Amino acid sequence: MNMEKVNSVDFGDFVEVFGNVIERCPLAAAAVRSQRPFSDLEDLEKHFCTFIDALPRSGQEGILRCHPHLAGRELQRGTLAAESQREQSAAGLQNPGTDERRRLAKLNAQCRARFGFPFVLVARLRDPAVVARELERRLRCPPAQELRTALGEVKTIGRLRLADLLGADCARL
Amino acid sequence: MNMEKVNSVDFGDFVEVFGNVIERCPLAAAAVRSQRPFSDLEDLEKHFCTFIDALPRSGQEGILRCHPHLAGRELQRGTLAAESQREQSAAGLQNPGTDERRRLAKLNAQCRARFGFPFVLVARLRDPAVVARELERRLRCPPAQELRTALGEVKTIGRLRLADLLGADCARL
Repeated sequence: MNMEKVNSVDFGDFVEVFGNVIERCPLAAAAVRSQRPFSDLEDLEKHFCTFIDALPRSGQEGILRCHPHLAGRELQRGTLAAESQREQSAAGLQNPGTDERRRLAKLNAQCRARFGFPFVLVARLRDPAVVARELERRLRCPPAQELRTALGEVKTIGRLRLADLLGADCARL
Repeated sequence: MNMEKVNSVDFGDFVEVFGNVIERCPLAAAAVRSQRPFSDLEDLEKHFCTFIDALPRSGQEGILRCHPHLAGRELQRGTLAAESQREQSAAGLQNPGTDERRRLAKLNAQCRARFGFPFVLVARLRDPAVVARELERRLRCPPAQELRTALGEVKTIGRLRLADLLGADCARL
């Protein structure tokens, strides 16, 4: 981890490196850049969370809408952002059985219809059966609660991605 | 223009179609989606402007940092987003003379150093000589004024892109 490097790269490189800490949201990294210098990983992470928390509800829903569908077509086709591809594959979501795939697709569709955004969860910490049970539980929650839950997952995913990037910063920066 | 179609597509398609109305900022489209139904182009445009205006200053600076450099390497290499490529080429910025290129590169660097974000301007409305003169003028403005000016340009670019998209909506949606 080399925060000196993080603090000294120009904003183009900063956005390139951290542009997918929040999925498909280079704006988050580009905004966080205004807060440098950063003291450490936690400090950097805190500013990403602050960016999300400061958005109006529509913006927070927007953060979720920029996420791919869990175990969706993009995953099968390999067209996800590299980080998502790795995370969803690690959770065994790339090749679920036919029944499991149908169940996940149905839950995803129900989520989009009920909440207006997709399920977001920390795929790399779960396995496909746990994912399906968790989605069933969350589907019954009130929308405001599911929004909070999903944004909490976004922040955890962001923390894991930041840790990956800073562990490998010499190669990337 | 067919607002019925705009109002009825699912959020994945909505973000895909309008994801670059604000350069490299699918989040803006994903957030605006919460405000549907939209009555017309002006209504849709108003919500994009509201999204930008509601961001804290760091977020507004972030919007600008997601823009490519005017007449920069990405333009020469053809790796810009399609909209930017078209707009900058139309302004004659793709193949400026050597002196003009040097002058624009110097002005861009001065802007990044002074303001912490790149110049953004409605390239398709200008020619290279006018661009350079305009950048020289803006470089002397106070940072808060340049932020306002640049965001005004972002909004104009967004309006032009929306008009293009809605004029061609049958092909895209």
